[in-house]
Amino acid sequence: MPTPVPTVLVLDAEPLPRLGRLTGRARIVHTDAAGLAERLPSADVLLVWDFTSHAVREAWPGVGPRPRWVHTASAGVDHLMCPSLAASGTVVTNARGIFEQPVAEYVAALVLAIAKDLPRTLDLQRERTWRHRETRRLAGTRACVVGSGPIGRTIARTLKALDVTTALVGRVPRTGIHGPGDLDRLMSRADWVIAAAPLTEQTRGMFDIRCFGVMQPSAHFINVGRGPLVVEEALAEALAKRWIAGAALDVFVEEPLAPGSPLWRVPGLIVCPPQSGGTGGGRAENGVQFVEMFERWAAGRPLVNVVDKQRGYVPGR
Amino acid sequence: MPTPVPTVLVLDAEPLPRLGRLTGRARIVHTDAAGLAERLPSADVLLVWDFTSHAVREAWPGVGPRPRWVHTASAGVDHLMCPSLAASGTVVTNARGIFEQPVAEYVAALVLAIAKDLPRTLDLQRERTWRHRETRRLAGTRACVVGSGPIGRTIARTLKALDVTTALVGRVPRTGIHGPGDLDRLMSRADWVIAAAPLTEQTRGMFDIRCFGVMQPSAHFINVGRGPLVVEEALAEALAKRWIAGAALDVFVEEPLAPGSPLWRVPGLIVCPPQSGGTGGGRAENGVQFVEMFERWAAGRPLVNVVDKQRGYVPGR
Repeated sequence: MPTPVPTVLVLDAEPLPRLGRLTGRARIVHTDAAGLAERLPSADVLLVWDFTSHAVREAWPGVGPRPRWVHTASAGVDHLMCPSLAASGTVVTNARGIFEQPVAEYVAALVLAIAKDLPRTLDLQRERTWRHRETRRLAGTRACVVGSGPIGRTIARTLKALDVTTALVGRVPRTGIHGPGDLDRLMSRADWVIAAAPLTEQTRGMFDIRCFGVMQPSAHFINVGRGPLVVEEALAEALAKRWIAGAALDVFVEEPLAPGSPLWRVPGLIVCPPQSGGTGGGRAENGVQFVEMFERWAAGRPLVNVVDKQRGYVPGR
Repeated sequence: MPTPVPTVLVLDAEPLPRLGRLTGRARIVHTDAAGLAERLPSADVLLVWDFTSHAVREAWPGVGPRPRWVHTASAGVDHLMCPSLAASGTVVTNARGIFEQPVAEYVAALVLAIAKDLPRTLDLQRERTWRHRETRRLAGTRACVVGSGPIGRTIARTLKALDVTTALVGRVPRTGIHGPGDLDRLMSRADWVIAAAPLTEQTRGMFDIRCFGVMQPSAHFINVGRGPLVVEEALAEALAKRWIAGAALDVFVEEPLAPGSPLWRVPGLIVCPPQSGGTGGGRAENGVQFVEMFERWAAGRPLVNVVDKQRGYVPGR
């Protein structure tokens, strides 16, 4: 009797690259958010591609068996974690390794665009106005990167390659990484404060009005972590009062940002629909990663990128 | 009898930082372009700050003694070189060392902004439109930097730090630098072609329609060298016909670019009023550099950054 073919339930709206490689080795079943609860009991594996959805968190506590393994094609897992998933025997893995470099490049793009005043250059071109401006030298400026996971570390490495003096802040101090006790001091001297932390109970709302008050009036704040790290009203107030010089948000408390949101029009704020991790090859790379992980799982070998479900991220290194 | 205090004639419209340090050691006389010819005969040194002006080239061939030393606060010297200056005993020096890093950062800013589609992000924000887009990964793309002087080499180093595979092309091949014979092959494979060459008889108009035809349809062209390196009509045509994907010009054949120039509105072209070298500290750094060079000159020590007046740039290294 052949081994039964496991069922991989895929939560995604769009067709997926590379999963065809699993033909014959897995039964691929697609679902949207509405059909998730009904199909969960028959799935061995759940693959979450639509990582803007909270469908997993909503469907998980329901009735019936649950997949033994959940993989999310994202770095953060806050969109799917819930007490019943955390308490279960289900293994959760993430897409560590895919997003680090694109996110770091995106941060470098924002920092350089701000230093070189590129948004104003584009405005002046639209107005056909020739105006020489002095712009900032990036080398020698100071960055404080909050979040010492692989994304934060890659951002720090990229900024250092551009001769930015960069400090990395994590949950616990270790070699080359500052602890939370150094955060205020580092933020108070930084030209660039970059949020790249996971969303956990400790980090939710950590960038609040007090925090923006600590920064220099010439400082810029960039969030590529998760929207709820930031108290958005406090950021808007800090910008309006010129406590800080500017900001760029790649993630928001509510996504998509409503057309009526005041955030679209806050002076000094660049609104980037979430794409820091998006690259031409991103979805394909995610597909390749899942196929490799499936092969490990099917062979009974240990999975990689295993999330600590209590902490809410992949610990280590 | 005290040594006579030399006269430093300064061609610039704006007040200058740091020249006050020469008080008592030099007589500083300011002039605009119109007064230059009249004042040249009484000047020992000419300091050209307004390097967008052709006033030197126009005034030099006139009557009377000429300064023994001309320093320009720019990397290029094409704006002041003329046959009579080239044939004279006057030493010409430039601002080598000041512009390398700001220009390289500016190129990195443009390359990253294009890869991450930042101009479109700003457009979408203006329209309050939330749209996820896949963008390009910069790491692993290929650049061809044309011009192997200090600026070209610093651009290459900066792009390499961002994991861009970068080739440098110079007038003569040497270690780590390709010769002109490799240019077509390198351009045909490049994602980014960056012009950073001096303007000489050999380089004038080198980026012509043939050249844009060699590039990939996905390639972008960036000019931070001198405007006349590029046949602007050919670039506009190549963009209109989608022979290349986009371009950014920091310098132009005619500057300032007239409000009626069609270049303001060429699709895919970013127009940057010349500022790649401009940084907050730029003018002060130029002032410090001139003061140091003046001290060498006054002490009879050899000058640095001496331009080969036949070639039109500082040779070497």
